[in-house]
Amino acid sequence: MSAAMAKQIVLTARPQGRPTLENFRLEEVPMPALPRGGLLLRVLYLSLDPYMRGRMDDRKSYAPAVGVGEVMTAQSVCEVMASENPHYEAGDIVLAPTGWRTHAASDGTGLRKLDPERAPITTGLGVLGMPGFTAYSGLYVIGKPKAGETVVVAAASGPVGSLVGQLAKMAGARAVGIAAGADKCRHVKEELRFDAAIDHRAPNFPQQLAAACPKGIDVYFENVGGAVWQAVLPLLNRFARVPVCGLIAQYNAADAPGPNLLPATMREVLSKSLMLRGFINYEFAAEHFATFLQTVAAGIKSGEIRYREDITDGFENAPATFLGMLEGKNFGKTLIRVAVRP
Amino acid sequence: MSAAMAKQIVLTARPQGRPTLENFRLEEVPMPALPRGGLLLRVLYLSLDPYMRGRMDDRKSYAPAVGVGEVMTAQSVCEVMASENPHYEAGDIVLAPTGWRTHAASDGTGLRKLDPERAPITTGLGVLGMPGFTAYSGLYVIGKPKAGETVVVAAASGPVGSLVGQLAKMAGARAVGIAAGADKCRHVKEELRFDAAIDHRAPNFPQQLAAACPKGIDVYFENVGGAVWQAVLPLLNRFARVPVCGLIAQYNAADAPGPNLLPATMREVLSKSLMLRGFINYEFAAEHFATFLQTVAAGIKSGEIRYREDITDGFENAPATFLGMLEGKNFGKTLIRVAVRP
Repeated sequence: MSAAMAKQIVLTARPQGRPTLENFRLEEVPMPALPRGGLLLRVLYLSLDPYMRGRMDDRKSYAPAVGVGEVMTAQSVCEVMASENPHYEAGDIVLAPTGWRTHAASDGTGLRKLDPERAPITTGLGVLGMPGFTAYSGLYVIGKPKAGETVVVAAASGPVGSLVGQLAKMAGARAVGIAAGADKCRHVKEELRFDAAIDHRAPNFPQQLAAACPKGIDVYFENVGGAVWQAVLPLLNRFARVPVCGLIAQYNAADAPGPNLLPATMREVLSKSLMLRGFINYEFAAEHFATFLQTVAAGIKSGEIRYREDITDGFENAPATFLGMLEGKNFGKTLIRVAVRP
Repeated sequence: MSAAMAKQIVLTARPQGRPTLENFRLEEVPMPALPRGGLLLRVLYLSLDPYMRGRMDDRKSYAPAVGVGEVMTAQSVCEVMASENPHYEAGDIVLAPTGWRTHAASDGTGLRKLDPERAPITTGLGVLGMPGFTAYSGLYVIGKPKAGETVVVAAASGPVGSLVGQLAKMAGARAVGIAAGADKCRHVKEELRFDAAIDHRAPNFPQQLAAACPKGIDVYFENVGGAVWQAVLPLLNRFARVPVCGLIAQYNAADAPGPNLLPATMREVLSKSLMLRGFINYEFAAEHFATFLQTVAAGIKSGEIRYREDITDGFENAPATFLGMLEGKNFGKTLIRVAVRP
């Protein structure tokens, strides 16, 4: 029997500013062995998320950087190929921190079993997974929108933003989404049923945003940074809350030429009693994850919550798809279909 | 009987950047008449505070700007000269929003009677007044220091900063003060009993601050802005809290040349789950003012809380004293003694 090979993608060098394909290398490696008492996993879907850009830098953060030569970090949906772990058996579908790999050995740490009856298994990486819980915890635990308030979120057709707006509606708030281009804006307004959708590429974007928020902004869910923040800042109401979960527009900023926008931001923080709060979804997991799963799964079943996935076939396409996502080319949750379930 | 004259100081023009004496004009005006049902007040002590710089600008804020030609805003400690208000009688000492005036008529709105037996009446403008409550509410309601945590505050010899550090100590936290020059640092460490005091004018200030905070910073009470924030930012711990009550170093910044420091701040907010919260003390008054008065008055009586005042004689010296305070020339709570109690 010929030795089957597995594939993995490693970081070749830290990017200076915008990453390129040269920052990644596809490697063929021997198929991992079943660890004693552990599991052997075959990746079906690999998740690509903006936070991975941060892991490519050697910057002190909430999570360690990916080392040069190491496999890129990722969660994936896997099929259990073999198991000596009593909690899992071959054929089970699990969420696992495999990294960018086609196959992985696991000692069972960090696995979560997915129920294919509850929802399509891909949702475990999206609306019912980390991006969904980021939206839920940031909006409900930090943002706390009240009925009649206005919630604004950027990347509104993406996996986080799309749920932020739909959860804002469920709380009785006005939901205003920011997206790139007419197609995404139409999707946000018509399919996701936000109250308004604004194209941030429009030349009069700040004016359009102001017009869509006639009573100002009470919660701005910050997941992009950069120019959108400058348009949002003057519209924030007194006591506005700003959950900060991502800064995709800044991840690639190697330097920061002037003008210095910090004093103006701090002045608004002071004069309007604003609250900015950075967060990582898992800090709220112990207290809120179960309620999140219940709430959002029910919303999906009832049709109240909708989601969209952007699936690319082929493990080798992960780097290019990831780079495209950083530029906003994805339309929905970005996934790589690594293998089809037999 | 010759008509006695009162004095007032008005804003002559909005400052461009740093204000100068030309922005103020001393006016002699007829003595105000006792309003029907109201009070006539003689100002004993006028309070000068950094927030007044903000009121000189025509910028949307939590409080309206002072109009050009209008009397500058201020609280003062007054003696009631005459009263038709049943709650006050001649000789009472009250805190009143008189503005920069030697005498004022009042309809009774916004007055608070001071008890000269409780503490010296000047404390109503300082440690037992707005600056004290700013320290108390920002630190205890927003910052919430836990025993063993590290609290850093700038302008530590000033009326807000000095109380922040002493209240941090009372909560079991390590208190690190930042002040300008050896005299103030000595006062902060020896008289106010902070754990450390750092001179922000020292060339190696960031290194000294880091050395004084070996376990990082859990609460940074932001009352200055500017360069101190840049030194604090890399030292903040995960989940650090930053109550923002003042930005004196930025009040005079008419423009803001690069580099752009906002992206770095937002990255830290995100990667360390920081919480920044602007506030104005009175948003917490209904819930916390009574406890504050009780706590701090008891601390003063027991000697656990110390305070320092910087008193200048003569109403006409208010503008120059105010400008000096903006440059950090005060040493303690800045007051103008307008009249001596007979």
